[in-house]
Amino acid sequence: MPDRIYLDWNATAPLRREAREAMVAAWELAGNPSSVHAEGRQARRLVEEARAVIAGAVGAPARNVVFTSGGTEANALALTPGLRRGTGVPVRRLLVSAVEHASVLAGGRFPAVAIGIVGVTRAGLLDLDRLRAMLADGPPALVSVMLANNETGAVQPVMEAAGIVHQAGGLLHVDAIQAFGRIPFNINVLNADLLTLSAHKIGGPKGVGALVVAEDLLGLEPVLRGGGQEHGRRAGTENVAGIAGFGAAAKAAMAALEGDARRLEGLRSRLEGGLQQTSGVVIFSGDAPRLPNTTLFTVPGLKAETAVIGFDLAGVAVSSGSACSSGKVQPSHVLEAMGFGPELAQGAVRLSLGWSTTPADVDRTLEAWRRLANTLLKRSDETLLERF
Amino acid sequence: MPDRIYLDWNATAPLRREAREAMVAAWELAGNPSSVHAEGRQARRLVEEARAVIAGAVGAPARNVVFTSGGTEANALALTPGLRRGTGVPVRRLLVSAVEHASVLAGGRFPAVAIGIVGVTRAGLLDLDRLRAMLADGPPALVSVMLANNETGAVQPVMEAAGIVHQAGGLLHVDAIQAFGRIPFNINVLNADLLTLSAHKIGGPKGVGALVVAEDLLGLEPVLRGGGQEHGRRAGTENVAGIAGFGAAAKAAMAALEGDARRLEGLRSRLEGGLQQTSGVVIFSGDAPRLPNTTLFTVPGLKAETAVIGFDLAGVAVSSGSACSSGKVQPSHVLEAMGFGPELAQGAVRLSLGWSTTPADVDRTLEAWRRLANTLLKRSDETLLERF
Repeated sequence: MPDRIYLDWNATAPLRREAREAMVAAWELAGNPSSVHAEGRQARRLVEEARAVIAGAVGAPARNVVFTSGGTEANALALTPGLRRGTGVPVRRLLVSAVEHASVLAGGRFPAVAIGIVGVTRAGLLDLDRLRAMLADGPPALVSVMLANNETGAVQPVMEAAGIVHQAGGLLHVDAIQAFGRIPFNINVLNADLLTLSAHKIGGPKGVGALVVAEDLLGLEPVLRGGGQEHGRRAGTENVAGIAGFGAAAKAAMAALEGDARRLEGLRSRLEGGLQQTSGVVIFSGDAPRLPNTTLFTVPGLKAETAVIGFDLAGVAVSSGSACSSGKVQPSHVLEAMGFGPELAQGAVRLSLGWSTTPADVDRTLEAWRRLANTLLKRSDETLLERF
Repeated sequence: MPDRIYLDWNATAPLRREAREAMVAAWELAGNPSSVHAEGRQARRLVEEARAVIAGAVGAPARNVVFTSGGTEANALALTPGLRRGTGVPVRRLLVSAVEHASVLAGGRFPAVAIGIVGVTRAGLLDLDRLRAMLADGPPALVSVMLANNETGAVQPVMEAAGIVHQAGGLLHVDAIQAFGRIPFNINVLNADLLTLSAHKIGGPKGVGALVVAEDLLGLEPVLRGGGQEHGRRAGTENVAGIAGFGAAAKAAMAALEGDARRLEGLRSRLEGGLQQTSGVVIFSGDAPRLPNTTLFTVPGLKAETAVIGFDLAGVAVSSGSACSSGKVQPSHVLEAMGFGPELAQGAVRLSLGWSTTPADVDRTLEAWRRLANTLLKRSDETLLERF
């Protein structure tokens, strides 16, 4: 589809050339990384090379990286009751921000009664006072706060949260999936105890992720048990090619990060400037620190599902908030947590940009939007659909 | 490594051409299968086409196939306390054969006290009388029996087991990973309630598997929760390319099955005939129904680790039993369950063949074996290693 414009990078990025090449090379190796013969050792080497790259990208030693089948599995692995650091007290409850991804809101292996939700401000940022109060009111907690939100792009005050959490004797898990490759960070500066990454948001393959743990983290119970791979932290034959692709994508993403971020921020400004010519446009988290590539917007009266279909018919792939909910049509829990009612939340459209996005893409998207806005905001949905 | 002979197909098969092509094609699709735009719908179509192929290969409706990150995850998902069929009684304990894969022996989400081990005969076959007795002695059980053993290749009496299990009000899970693509079967003829499959044993990619469930199976609790993918049975963005590769590999494997099985059985006879010229050779499960491609053998005095290294240096990739134990050197639990002491079990070497194995490969392997046997069975390990 050469004429299409893809602006749904937060759902999944196109596969990078470097990742393709690494995977094609990995396919030549028949071996199982657990086998001792030459074929097995070659496969093992690829996995360990990728581990070193991922570890280096977030400032961790390679041994602290656990490869998983994706972000959802890494989050499930992270959310383990009983985690502790060194001689610290094991965590007995879980506090998650209200804008976390569904796989974190699911709570991992914490029972529902041991899970608390920490609210966010209208800008979509973690309410640090509320976090402090909730931490004071109970036993040591694992706190899960994403570095950047997948819907709004809002960058959370994770370093401040880490200070508050550790002060209270708790541990901090950071879902960094959307931030990885888009803004610079590292596990030590964030002061996180666990960090989740995913390959397919940075141009690696779908179906690969990683959990990165702090040096002296103890008590991580595997979700998948059996063959003892990943030092007993995640059983199952390693997705060798996928892991190699993840490593190659991470290397490319880190090398391009600074330039991409600057360029995307410029394109995003151009995009938002254009959108704001439509009267009444709201940019969610517009006043918060945000990823450089993400715009979540609406206009009173817009219906997101109709807008997404309209953009699609006009050749532009966009999203109505998160794509991770498998076709479910319901108001975003993120916007609800930010205090927006269904009348605005149901119209939220996400445009997320990436390395191959051009100024022309932005201009064509704005043209499509102007036509859509003229139609959508004045006619009924039925009329729009008849028009195309 | 063009001169190498790869005889470790039970650990992992080389990637099939059909799977490569399907994955390269899938890489062109940037979309997330949960997205509603054209890119998302194209990705969704690939996943659903693969689902139909996998379902068809085992005689199930497509909706009963749950894609996972591999066999280990599919087994973890299968072993759910509370499973039932229709209005049946939920299972409250787990019985597994003593020769199951480590990911089944781990017991899924059953507590250790609710797990029982059913012994096997010296030929490695499930002890059906023992199964009957254990089922009679307690509440309804989920029973897990593999269709073919990964180490010996022994094909279990699964249909008989299904009759006994259902008679006792229980449910049957069948880990069919090693059997898939090697012997014909289908979920209805086996009368299984759950069936595990994996891609990388049939020439698909590593990191993909499936759990197939019977039509009216209820109570399956997801291991990974979040976005609601796979009809709420397995959250996480689908590994689109990997799933497409799995489907393509399954299609190719099913088409080739009959011819491959006949040819491999011939090659395996040639191999075992040659091995048996060494005096004292024991072929494990030699008297049981076996997969056509697998030989597990030893000679008194052989040490498997040394033999594997010796074969490797001679250019032949073989295994010391299971490769799934991530480098752990310990006697096989399978041979222990069959009643073999460490003196024989520690010498077990597995040769597993596949579609590209040739008569010349078998002959070169036998030559390597004769040289190795001369050395290994007469000299110390140190001397062998010095020789190479």
